[in-house]
Amino acid sequence: MPMFEDLKVFTGNSHPDLARDICSYLGLSLGACEVFKFSNDESFARIRENIREKDVFLVQSVGRPVNDSLMELLIMIDAARRASAGRITTVIPYYPYGRTDKKDQPRVAITARLVADFISVAGADRVLTMNLHAGQIQGFFNIPLDELTAIPLLAQQFSHLKDKDLVVAATDVGAAKRARYMADHLDSPIAIIDKQRLGNEDRVRAANVIGDVEGKTALIVDDEINTGGTVVAAAQALDQHGASEIYCSAVHPILSDKASEALADSNLVSTVVTDTLPLPPEKRFDGLKVVSVAGLLGEAIHRIHSGLSVGAMFNY
Amino acid sequence: MPMFEDLKVFTGNSHPDLARDICSYLGLSLGACEVFKFSNDESFARIRENIREKDVFLVQSVGRPVNDSLMELLIMIDAARRASAGRITTVIPYYPYGRTDKKDQPRVAITARLVADFISVAGADRVLTMNLHAGQIQGFFNIPLDELTAIPLLAQQFSHLKDKDLVVAATDVGAAKRARYMADHLDSPIAIIDKQRLGNEDRVRAANVIGDVEGKTALIVDDEINTGGTVVAAAQALDQHGASEIYCSAVHPILSDKASEALADSNLVSTVVTDTLPLPPEKRFDGLKVVSVAGLLGEAIHRIHSGLSVGAMFNY
Amino acid sequence: MPMFEDLKVFTGNSHPDLARDICSYLGLSLGACEVFKFSNDESFARIRENIREKDVFLVQSVGRPVNDSLMELLIMIDAARRASAGRITTVIPYYPYGRTDKKDQPRVAITARLVADFISVAGADRVLTMNLHAGQIQGFFNIPLDELTAIPLLAQQFSHLKDKDLVVAATDVGAAKRARYMADHLDSPIAIIDKQRLGNEDRVRAANVIGDVEGKTALIVDDEINTGGTVVAAAQALDQHGASEIYCSAVHPILSDKASEALADSNLVSTVVTDTLPLPPEKRFDGLKVVSVAGLLGEAIHRIHSGLSVGAMFNY
Amino acid sequence: MPMFEDLKVFTGNSHPDLARDICSYLGLSLGACEVFKFSNDESFARIRENIREKDVFLVQSVGRPVNDSLMELLIMIDAARRASAGRITTVIPYYPYGRTDKKDQPRVAITARLVADFISVAGADRVLTMNLHAGQIQGFFNIPLDELTAIPLLAQQFSHLKDKDLVVAATDVGAAKRARYMADHLDSPIAIIDKQRLGNEDRVRAANVIGDVEGKTALIVDDEINTGGTVVAAAQALDQHGASEIYCSAVHPILSDKASEALADSNLVSTVVTDTLPLPPEKRFDGLKVVSVAGLLGEAIHRIHSGLSVGAMFNY
Amino acid sequence: MPMFEDLKVFTGNSHPDLARDICSYLGLSLGACEVFKFSNDESFARIRENIREKDVFLVQSVGRPVNDSLMELLIMIDAARRASAGRITTVIPYYPYGRTDKKDQPRVAITARLVADFISVAGADRVLTMNLHAGQIQGFFNIPLDELTAIPLLAQQFSHLKDKDLVVAATDVGAAKRARYMADHLDSPIAIIDKQRLGNEDRVRAANVIGDVEGKTALIVDDEINTGGTVVAAAQALDQHGASEIYCSAVHPILSDKASEALADSNLVSTVVTDTLPLPPEKRFDGLKVVSVAGLLGEAIHRIHSGLSVGAMFNY
Amino acid sequence: MPMFEDLKVFTGNSHPDLARDICSYLGLSLGACEVFKFSNDESFARIRENIREKDVFLVQSVGRPVNDSLMELLIMIDAARRASAGRITTVIPYYPYGRTDKKDQPRVAITARLVADFISVAGADRVLTMNLHAGQIQGFFNIPLDELTAIPLLAQQFSHLKDKDLVVAATDVGAAKRARYMADHLDSPIAIIDKQRLGNEDRVRAANVIGDVEGKTALIVDDEINTGGTVVAAAQALDQHGASEIYCSAVHPILSDKASEALADSNLVSTVVTDTLPLPPEKRFDGLKVVSVAGLLGEAIHRIHSGLSVGAMFNY
Repeated sequence: MPMFEDLKVFTGNSHPDLARDICSYLGLSLGACEVFKFSNDESFARIRENIREKDVFLVQSVGRPVNDSLMELLIMIDAARRASAGRITTVIPYYPYGRTDKKDQPRVAITARLVADFISVAGADRVLTMNLHAGQIQGFFNIPLDELTAIPLLAQQFSHLKDKDLVVAATDVGAAKRARYMADHLDSPIAIIDKQRLGNEDRVRAANVIGDVEGKTALIVDDEINTGGTVVAAAQALDQHGASEIYCSAVHPILSDKASEALADSNLVSTVVTDTLPLPPEKRFDGLKVVSVAGLLGEAIHRIHSGLSVGAMFNY
Repeated sequence: MPMFEDLKVFTGNSHPDLARDICSYLGLSLGACEVFKFSNDESFARIRENIREKDVFLVQSVGRPVNDSLMELLIMIDAARRASAGRITTVIPYYPYGRTDKKDQPRVAITARLVADFISVAGADRVLTMNLHAGQIQGFFNIPLDELTAIPLLAQQFSHLKDKDLVVAATDVGAAKRARYMADHLDSPIAIIDKQRLGNEDRVRAANVIGDVEGKTALIVDDEINTGGTVVAAAQALDQHGASEIYCSAVHPILSDKASEALADSNLVSTVVTDTLPLPPEKRFDGLKVVSVAGLLGEAIHRIHSGLSVGAMFNY
Repeated sequence: MPMFEDLKVFTGNSHPDLARDICSYLGLSLGACEVFKFSNDESFARIRENIREKDVFLVQSVGRPVNDSLMELLIMIDAARRASAGRITTVIPYYPYGRTDKKDQPRVAITARLVADFISVAGADRVLTMNLHAGQIQGFFNIPLDELTAIPLLAQQFSHLKDKDLVVAATDVGAAKRARYMADHLDSPIAIIDKQRLGNEDRVRAANVIGDVEGKTALIVDDEINTGGTVVAAAQALDQHGASEIYCSAVHPILSDKASEALADSNLVSTVVTDTLPLPPEKRFDGLKVVSVAGLLGEAIHRIHSGLSVGAMFNY
Repeated sequence: MPMFEDLKVFTGNSHPDLARDICSYLGLSLGACEVFKFSNDESFARIRENIREKDVFLVQSVGRPVNDSLMELLIMIDAARRASAGRITTVIPYYPYGRTDKKDQPRVAITARLVADFISVAGADRVLTMNLHAGQIQGFFNIPLDELTAIPLLAQQFSHLKDKDLVVAATDVGAAKRARYMADHLDSPIAIIDKQRLGNEDRVRAANVIGDVEGKTALIVDDEINTGGTVVAAAQALDQHGASEIYCSAVHPILSDKASEALADSNLVSTVVTDTLPLPPEKRFDGLKVVSVAGLLGEAIHRIHSGLSVGAMFNY
Repeated sequence: MPMFEDLKVFTGNSHPDLARDICSYLGLSLGACEVFKFSNDESFARIRENIREKDVFLVQSVGRPVNDSLMELLIMIDAARRASAGRITTVIPYYPYGRTDKKDQPRVAITARLVADFISVAGADRVLTMNLHAGQIQGFFNIPLDELTAIPLLAQQFSHLKDKDLVVAATDVGAAKRARYMADHLDSPIAIIDKQRLGNEDRVRAANVIGDVEGKTALIVDDEINTGGTVVAAAQALDQHGASEIYCSAVHPILSDKASEALADSNLVSTVVTDTLPLPPEKRFDGLKVVSVAGLLGEAIHRIHSGLSVGAMFNY
Repeated sequence: MPMFEDLKVFTGNSHPDLARDICSYLGLSLGACEVFKFSNDESFARIRENIREKDVFLVQSVGRPVNDSLMELLIMIDAARRASAGRITTVIPYYPYGRTDKKDQPRVAITARLVADFISVAGADRVLTMNLHAGQIQGFFNIPLDELTAIPLLAQQFSHLKDKDLVVAATDVGAAKRARYMADHLDSPIAIIDKQRLGNEDRVRAANVIGDVEGKTALIVDDEINTGGTVVAAAQALDQHGASEIYCSAVHPILSDKASEALADSNLVSTVVTDTLPLPPEKRFDGLKVVSVAGLLGEAIHRIHSGLSVGAMFNY
């Protein structure tokens, strides 16, 4: 017996398709709300049905336009709190500012923590998210947070490569652990693109490949693809070191600027991403495959609502 | 003797000209910092000089793009706090979301409070702002807040009309108090554009003028001009009720959409605003006069830094 | 199905009659508690029945003696929290210190915010109140707050005047919006008593009437009547400007000092108020009509307890 | 060198004489402020001089009318915080609600903690107080608190009794520790008035004296005298057990109801109290001696302002 | 109907036997969790079953090793919170640091408050504890706390002494109130061991007995026995003053160092304690009787879970 | 000019030698305080000199016994806060629980965040620490934190190997970034010990070396050495892959259990660590070199006290 009453799902403007797909999984309709900007550029949200004591899930992936998507989410939280929601779970398939998670130079912010504080202060009771840039971001919250992973889902897309002498490649040393995690699902070794400094200048670095890729099928793995530059450079390095075929996979398809063109023009056989962020037609290209996380998120929402274990989804 | 060491002023991207003018008043250079967006649309701020124990003022007027300007401010606050600033005063000439200051319909947010909480949570010690949409927004903060008013400054621009049988006109009943305050500076009566409901539909309303404007010089007053629609309609109503000449004044020139065109094409003799928000050339028009608040803000910053009364600036 | 168990209503000493009337509406008995002062003038509250997991409503209108009524409420909240109440809703028909809602002069408190903080800190989960002096006081809270309005109820008392060329009159410019709201319920125009400064002295002001009242029936509207001075002066001004008959209506009957005498002796045909504050026999007078809000508050409590929309009570 | 600038002392209406005496000790004038009630019974405070960055001390003993005195204090704190005081120390010679410091029956408040929370939430930085009812009330605060004791001062008044076979008597078992502390200053043994239950009724109890008082000079000690009933009963019990002469001493002279008459008519030789609470002429009586704590408080304020040890005042 | 779902009880390593006995009373099995130290001496806790929305009770008596037991408890709370427990009640039969509950000398901590803050910050919703060293420690929490007392249970063990001219003896003046409370259950008078200062040295004190013990059966009462030194000295003093038989009783058997030997070798007939702390075989001795509080704690847990009055257990 | 008065350094019992060395660097004596355990195993701290308004630094490395060291630190913070310290900086050369920085399995705590909350709640104003296990732990705090790195210091110890065809080896994929950082200081490539899963069992893994080590001098790098097992296994793997000479370096020498023996008996040429944790004689062995961080910490304290940039110490 769920502790909180009727489950209600609302979404802002950042990625309504995903919210709708989640609702399909749950057999629900999206809750009625309107979220828009006034002529003075200020965001506004109004929930259009009674949510007193309801178990409210606010689905908002915080992608481009990032700050607008974020403020929409925060305003929706406040609206839900003041409307006496029984419980508010923010569902953030793509958590923003994940790369600003520590001070790696003087006098900068830790924006990922700031965002966590805003979500808590606005009145959220819980968070559901996917593949954080760093697991420690969980600790930026004191409210319960469930982090799902799409890696097993993505690994399935490459199961046919297991026989093909596969190596999983990390785009840099910071991604090595992520590569190992994917490689565990494919029973494969890993390689790493390591950038060694040339001379004293930090900016100029040579890309080495450490680990054996010669004649192998390589699968480049990262948590997100932004401009695509890192992935394309990695593919080149792997090619130079003799990889036979090169694939790419990432959870979050940010695909900024000309990322889609760059990937389409690269030596990658294919690129597999999820739909944690919207992929409008102009960003899609031959060789891009999108796997949906709507089922994962929908199942997690069902389990949170019903008091069932979320960890059990991942065989913990 | 100021309690905190060296005064430092930094600004984001929302209105650097004003920040520079404030620094001129103070005889200082703007502090070195960089605030920009990464390719993934996330904002970033880095302060480029030591600010340990310094008395830091962050000048950021939160206008269009509103959410970007706001996040820039919040990120700068966090950066300053983590960089061990002695004290952080946020200088917000235009405070955003002021019109979302209460629940006037079910299930909406009180975003002006949310913004106040974010500023406090990010680590600001104080706020300096101008002409809030409602004075009660002061109470959304528990940190000290100084609210300056530009009304005396604007009133000076119309002192020559005192002899001309002047009436100050509020654009609606909610602005009556503001009109009275301006009228006190010009020793004049007031009139109000009142919109009475026609039938049961709340949306359809007739604009009456209450108060005597026949043959008088009318000065329309509001706290901000957004699309200009309200002001232009008020000017028409005043004209229909026999006002001889019509002027307009507002503190905050939001000037969304085609506001400048609408005002330029209206029957207004002139419109006087301040520079709390940037006014790029394409928004300027004949008949628009801009009065700078840089001196007011600069003097207030000097007084806050030096422990002098800010109230004394307004003859309290 | 309500989320919280049995509904329980308790009250302090400020206005037990209203609490009893609310309970009658709900078909409940008042919960057993004792609230009194010790010989050393300290207030004390003890709840005399088990309230673990119960849905507790504490009814306390914070009128004269204001600080005692307030402390009684705060002590009751703490007692209920420490007694493991499931949820605590404070029902405050008259919210105190509403006129101290901003700093309109240097070095004063914003006491309405302070009171909000105390209510939250003491452990209240929600607030139910009526006709706040300013809607923005809602934003002084981050816990859910429902604000009811008695204006439709009061407007009904004057529906017979609709045919009589009615004008609704605000006692000053700050009350213009409230007058417009009442006028909307009576399909009438408004007028405003405007006090223009005489010379440079702020204290000496002449009361003008702006708007047309000549030969009309006038209904003075305010949120509360304190000493009655403002209302009586407004009635005189309306009379001087030719109003034919003058009525008065206000939500909160504070009626300090000789207010009842002043109103009884004035030229008002009648005065209609609600019972948000107690009206002992010595404050009642011919021409005073009291409309009860017990039904409104009772219905709202029922809806909060049952998870039904409160906004729906007002056709939102 | 003091860390904060100019020391400023303000007071409300609860005990201005003491505040003035403290200022005399410090060689200062009382700061200008006005604290009063509006006609609607709401309290109001305005500080009338610039206090930016100043080291502000708010002296307010929270005695009868308790809730008014408390709200005055809290409002003054908020006014000082919003006026940008450098540091706010609340000086509370008599801390109220000290006897409501734990739940000794179900469903009551711990009001002494509530008051501590209010003082902190209103914005106080520190507390200076005297002889708390229980030392643990210190732990109700997380801001620094200095608790002074007047016991050595009171003990001096009885030093001539040291030769007279003195015994210090506690009014009940809960006061035994306090009696021991006074006795340590007078090198004397103690006795305790113990009330043993008669039958099963908790209310009916017989007052025994445990410890030897026969033929001795007895000094009854308590932290405060409220109605005087406890002290007078103790004096009778000591008399019945053969005490030769009976004196009384307490820090805080609440003297409610007919306490002064009761003490004046009792068998006490004399009663010595301090001036932590006001003692208007009608409460004074022959046999009452008042020792001033103004010097103690003034010295502590000086030390807090100057960064000197307060503990050193008591030979720690 | 309980508000929260299934009741679950977990325990750390400090006193698993008591947790098991509590579960027996409740007819439950202990929940599966592992709590241990890594090789680097850091504590770790993992709950091994789903607890979403469950009513979780964490039983941990905080005895030796005190800081390890405390950190185990705090880590378990955090784990339960992040695992989405419906409600977390910490059950702390022995609350640590109770004797550090005020600043009785300069520049020390109030550790009992610090512990309360940690428990709250870690995410506990409620506390259930027994016989706090000072009742005011309740006020160190703002979350609901139920304090049980084992005194009636201990008193039963001595009911046969009622006929034997019994006197209950406090070990010092600070324990007088506790002695009176026990004496109320046995209808007896009290005596107190009072230590009077010899000369000016605080450390050297003579132990007097005040109250009549000559020829009586004495029952020494304290809240806890640490090294046993205080109790043994009290027993000697009572013997010197002619007590015929001497018993001892305390709630919490800390029994540090050679306490058991000291008590076994003393003139005490017997010592009765509870099992709020573990009593390994090497601490047990002839003359020690242990009364279990598992039933009391189990019943209180049942009542908290079911929304029944806990006060009713003690005839309030 | 420093903002806060006299700098004072205090330490607990975890690593007094380091505190003394820091004081030597600063030309100060350690402040007088006593920190010990009572016979009941509870920790206690007393600061023995006046610290009002002083700039207090509490040096406490939180190593074995971890929970005792941590509680000592927290109690010292509370004591300093309540003693009115001007500012409290906690200096934590080894931050504990760094490896419990995220939920990598269901229903565990994030203890590193919990510790951060405790430090903040106890009243610390700032933190100074070294080489956190993950940089994101910075974001567990909202108070300013300075993280120093000892890597450049350690790199200096190996500068003579630069000519020897050096490769820096990470002990596992999670340490790759740290290895790259050290390698940047030595202009060398990196290698990584990667453990690939054998079959479906997560526990059984084969250690591969990825990257070229054949015939090279290898330097194993990690942030801390606990039991030494990981390092020794890495050294074996490197040896098997043909490394010519193998060195090891780590910042924090935990050296649990038989770590020193294991390292001494291994094929490592030498092991270089710092003194962030105490190294008693029994943990020292031939081939262990200890580099002191006292100068780094001392310089940082000097800079924090004086308002100078700490980042400047690392050429930022």
